[in-house]
Amino acid sequence: MPNYVYIACSLDGFIAKPDGNLDWLLNIPNPNNDDYGFSEYMSKIDGIIMGRNTFETVLGFSEWPYQKPVFVLSNTMKTIPDIMKDKVEIVSGDLKKIIRNLHQRKINNIYVDGGKTIQSFLKEDLIDGMIITTVSKILGEGISLFGEIGIEKHFLIEKVERLNEYMVKTYYRKEEI
Amino acid sequence: MPNYVYIACSLDGFIAKPDGNLDWLLNIPNPNNDDYGFSEYMSKIDGIIMGRNTFETVLGFSEWPYQKPVFVLSNTMKTIPDIMKDKVEIVSGDLKKIIRNLHQRKINNIYVDGGKTIQSFLKEDLIDGMIITTVSKILGEGISLFGEIGIEKHFLIEKVERLNEYMVKTYYRKEEI
Repeated sequence: MPNYVYIACSLDGFIAKPDGNLDWLLNIPNPNNDDYGFSEYMSKIDGIIMGRNTFETVLGFSEWPYQKPVFVLSNTMKTIPDIMKDKVEIVSGDLKKIIRNLHQRKINNIYVDGGKTIQSFLKEDLIDGMIITTVSKILGEGISLFGEIGIEKHFLIEKVERLNEYMVKTYYRKEEI
Repeated sequence: MPNYVYIACSLDGFIAKPDGNLDWLLNIPNPNNDDYGFSEYMSKIDGIIMGRNTFETVLGFSEWPYQKPVFVLSNTMKTIPDIMKDKVEIVSGDLKKIIRNLHQRKINNIYVDGGKTIQSFLKEDLIDGMIITTVSKILGEGISLFGEIGIEKHFLIEKVERLNEYMVKTYYRKEEI
């Protein structure tokens, strides 16, 4: 019952500009409108956990991008906009307990999204695999993917793909020690 | 007359533990004693510029690893240990002027090493290519490769190589805009 990260970050490890802006990523030339494997990845996913900041960023997109249930990890957020109530739930508290509850609902393959949420999962050793697309730009400042979580975590590189001149996609799985 | 970066960093963008320790990198299994292309790279290099911290880390190695002249970028360091005087010089002041002086001495292909020094070169748009080996470990804390330089820099991905389960090497060149 694995938890996965699937995310893009800059060469200097940022997933967004300081204000959450993603233009540096969305503006990468993509003449064939390629999704670079995202829909194939999503087909294996049962649900998505993200933090409040990521949720608010996604709410700003022109359309809601997920067909799978989304769980917003937040101890402060209390309500979901009515229009989203069939798509989104709020979860809070102990991560292992949250995951156990999701597993009971047959949500086994979980997509973990957003810097702080990924860091929380890593600290509790709850990330099994990561697909990280590195974009060949230094942003200079922004929201950090890994931050400084304060403990070591080891992964193994399964595969690497150069998508184009701007992006390289690396597949990691947790190293069992 | 290009300036290159050739460096390894952790998944979370650190080039050393907070105290400069490199065991996390040196302990990666390497049964064939492979240098992963370092000597081939060094054969194209005329000289190395590094900061004081990197210099002091290298001084702690069991032997001096460089056959090429080393320039330590420091405004505070005034002398070099006698035993190193044929191998190492101190340089300080304006980077463009330092590079012009090196070019006059036929030192054209320059290896730029160490986090702070790389960041200083990037800020002045003086990095032409980077070969970055990403190690599949999250260190959690340490000395940052790119820090937060505060400005955007764009590169293009020329090539990517998975060296083994632990390392992927990506070749970047500056995007001319």
